[in-house]
Amino acid sequence: MANKITPRAQDYSLWYNDLVKEAGLAEHSSVKGCMVIKPYGFAIWEKMQAELDHRFKETGHQNAYFPLFIPKSFLSKEAAHIEGFAKECAVVTHYRLKSDGKGGVIVDPDAKLEEELIVRPTSETIIWNTYKNWIQSYRDLPLLINQWANVVRWEMRTRLFLRTTEFLWQEGHTAHATSDEAVAETRQMLDIYADFAENFMAMPVVKGTKTANERFAGAIDTLCIEAMMQDGKALQAGTSHFLGQNFAKAFDVKFSDKSGNLEYVWATSWGVSTRLIGALIMAHSDDDGLVLPPSLAPIQVIIVPIYKQMEELQKISDAANVLMKELKAQGISVKYDDDDTKKPGWKFAESELKGIPLRIAIGPRDLENGTAEVVMRDTKSKQVVSFSELHKEVPKLLKQIQDGIYLKALKKREENTYYPNNWDEFSEIMKGEGGFAWAHWDGTAETELKIKELTKATIRCIPFDRKEEKGQCILTGKPSEGRVIFAKAY
Amino acid sequence: MANKITPRAQDYSLWYNDLVKEAGLAEHSSVKGCMVIKPYGFAIWEKMQAELDHRFKETGHQNAYFPLFIPKSFLSKEAAHIEGFAKECAVVTHYRLKSDGKGGVIVDPDAKLEEELIVRPTSETIIWNTYKNWIQSYRDLPLLINQWANVVRWEMRTRLFLRTTEFLWQEGHTAHATSDEAVAETRQMLDIYADFAENFMAMPVVKGTKTANERFAGAIDTLCIEAMMQDGKALQAGTSHFLGQNFAKAFDVKFSDKSGNLEYVWATSWGVSTRLIGALIMAHSDDDGLVLPPSLAPIQVIIVPIYKQMEELQKISDAANVLMKELKAQGISVKYDDDDTKKPGWKFAESELKGIPLRIAIGPRDLENGTAEVVMRDTKSKQVVSFSELHKEVPKLLKQIQDGIYLKALKKREENTYYPNNWDEFSEIMKGEGGFAWAHWDGTAETELKIKELTKATIRCIPFDRKEEKGQCILTGKPSEGRVIFAKAY
Repeated sequence: MANKITPRAQDYSLWYNDLVKEAGLAEHSSVKGCMVIKPYGFAIWEKMQAELDHRFKETGHQNAYFPLFIPKSFLSKEAAHIEGFAKECAVVTHYRLKSDGKGGVIVDPDAKLEEELIVRPTSETIIWNTYKNWIQSYRDLPLLINQWANVVRWEMRTRLFLRTTEFLWQEGHTAHATSDEAVAETRQMLDIYADFAENFMAMPVVKGTKTANERFAGAIDTLCIEAMMQDGKALQAGTSHFLGQNFAKAFDVKFSDKSGNLEYVWATSWGVSTRLIGALIMAHSDDDGLVLPPSLAPIQVIIVPIYKQMEELQKISDAANVLMKELKAQGISVKYDDDDTKKPGWKFAESELKGIPLRIAIGPRDLENGTAEVVMRDTKSKQVVSFSELHKEVPKLLKQIQDGIYLKALKKREENTYYPNNWDEFSEIMKGEGGFAWAHWDGTAETELKIKELTKATIRCIPFDRKEEKGQCILTGKPSEGRVIFAKAY
Repeated sequence: MANKITPRAQDYSLWYNDLVKEAGLAEHSSVKGCMVIKPYGFAIWEKMQAELDHRFKETGHQNAYFPLFIPKSFLSKEAAHIEGFAKECAVVTHYRLKSDGKGGVIVDPDAKLEEELIVRPTSETIIWNTYKNWIQSYRDLPLLINQWANVVRWEMRTRLFLRTTEFLWQEGHTAHATSDEAVAETRQMLDIYADFAENFMAMPVVKGTKTANERFAGAIDTLCIEAMMQDGKALQAGTSHFLGQNFAKAFDVKFSDKSGNLEYVWATSWGVSTRLIGALIMAHSDDDGLVLPPSLAPIQVIIVPIYKQMEELQKISDAANVLMKELKAQGISVKYDDDDTKKPGWKFAESELKGIPLRIAIGPRDLENGTAEVVMRDTKSKQVVSFSELHKEVPKLLKQIQDGIYLKALKKREENTYYPNNWDEFSEIMKGEGGFAWAHWDGTAETELKIKELTKATIRCIPFDRKEEKGQCILTGKPSEGRVIFAKAY
């Protein structure tokens, strides 16, 4: 199998596109801006879903399903919300086709909708319109609901997984009796995202608050996790919004508290999407293909028999079967690749392309010695392991890979994190490889936009763990109370 | 809790609507024809999904995801297909809104799509357009793919779960090198549906072939499973289509066989939807609420403490905790309802409404005696079980309920299955309670439509297991080779 992937050093962007294609993760469809998620890409999404869903349920959330369509008037009810989404809405105007009399079909002009329907770009409006009927009393709160769904935001320039017109995601929508409780929920869900990113995706993230400029349309506060990709750019991997009473007011959702007073309900929403697959690819992979964390790899171990005669294959298969049973009993997913139309070299390259964390090769000489050759995908390091130790060694090595790629990504981030104190230092960073620049900012949207104009860098977040530190804005010299993180972003 | 459900005998249709509402399964949304699936309803769907998905994967299928939108021209490529779906298509014509200058928004006339997009009513066309690039050689076959998705078919008259404009489903789309293989796949998937319906939903089904009239638009053959509801009507619970080479020809999908000849690919598609939840409700439930098969019940066992003093509650809770651990260890889902704002009577009624298969009540006297009162939801039968036996007794009772409701539904079906030999007998059945009428038919679409016009009964299927039996069509008296099943249907 020839490697068809452009090296990162040559063209990072092309490397990403090649990798998504060659590893069989996704492709562009015939519908502009929409992608086809191929089975291997979807298998990764299913593993992400399962783990996130488990965490949502553990924290008391239930899944439900709300309509794909939103009446146009609903979107307009929250002013900032419609302002944010109006420009990217797919609009359904008719509900029937008819024959054009020439073998084709046309839209039936008699089937025009009285009110146009918007394909949901996000579901706050339709959900809060529903919650109105579900919430009367404090006894109905909190309402902790999540939905797994497709959403549509019209995009002109698309990148597979990172920016597509249709994408898959989950959106949590919760309702609370107090502001404090909603704020705590907002933070809890961000912490779940961060924990998932770090411990499952092996991707270190910074937690913080968005500036007003980068806030979700309709939110009081947007919390986010930001990860650094291998090219030094930032990727927003998840957001959690404190919506205050904005949507409750827009849809008139009140509850009677214990004293019988009517109050508006407090809200949060939070989501992650198939964008995480793009982040996963860019966080760890190399010029030979994907590098997947064992926690999310659809296949964790591949066993490749090396043989000339069928007799040898039989013996190897017998040994492999025993090992597979032992590994599967530990919940490890294993593939035995005995396809005899392909050579071992091809299978090795294929398993690297697919990012299978561990590759075990067994040849006739291994059988004689009671050993196997084990190769780790991330470091490519080889080792010979005694066959009787393999079932104990494999989970250890998988853990080692999981930890290893996390630490590697963390080291990369640390090496590309800077603390510029003036404009020259700052712009020098943004001219070069990029990275995270912790810098002082005067707190105004104007300065933020000016910096973006000059360098393409945006404020990724005001990190939770920043120190109080008096300083001067890198652009205006005005006073600042602490550093924020600037980076060029996906 | 007062029972707000209309009795079946009074109004079956209202009973269904009341039950869906009161049990918290779903409700109509503000978007005409679209439903909100509420957490309890969605939890049942998740259990269905998990089990079906497992069966699909066991038989070698992989999940993927294809676009929500289908270019209008794609739909027209298969003549019968567009004929079948044109009248129920939601059409996206624009991709942007803009301010109307008065605080509202209007559709931006400058953002009109060159080609309209159809919200998928089913995905054969977009998928076969994609398969064109995935299939070149016999080595690429079979291609066994499934998608879990939402689809839209515009409906004027809707019923929750049974007939809604948007619904959730899975759609399998497979590609094969030979007709035989595709036919076998079509049958395999129908068998999986039937097995799921009978063993998980506890709902007996008849397997058979649809007549040309009732066939999927674009199929050569449509296989189906048909279930009888408590009112004697039929409900189509799943379909599996042999598509022949129709879509391969429409989208020019060819493969080179082992001799290098180019051949069109053979196709199947198959699906079940959230309609199954409607079937589940109508198959087993009664005037007090849902009756759920333990295999699909989100909560299988509820434990209700009966107490006056908090001291008593403490002792009961201790005992309940031990039992819960024992049951959970066996994979049984248990809820301990110690909410002290509600009385036991209310909890009993609520657990009946929700269809929780087993209810265990523990009072102070039970504790003294080392027993508990166990009530089965389906038969309402009560028994006193020794506490030390409960962990063994509960799984047995759950099995008994699962089997019991299946047998009850089967008996009901048998009692309402008839073999009319002439028009008088036939029309008598269709005037009354309905049921399945195995009757002779002359094989023409004309007669089929005439019978529908006269009685509202349609041919549900030509059952696989019908005997060869010469007879005369109940309407025309023309010769027939065997009986088909007529029924009024949902």
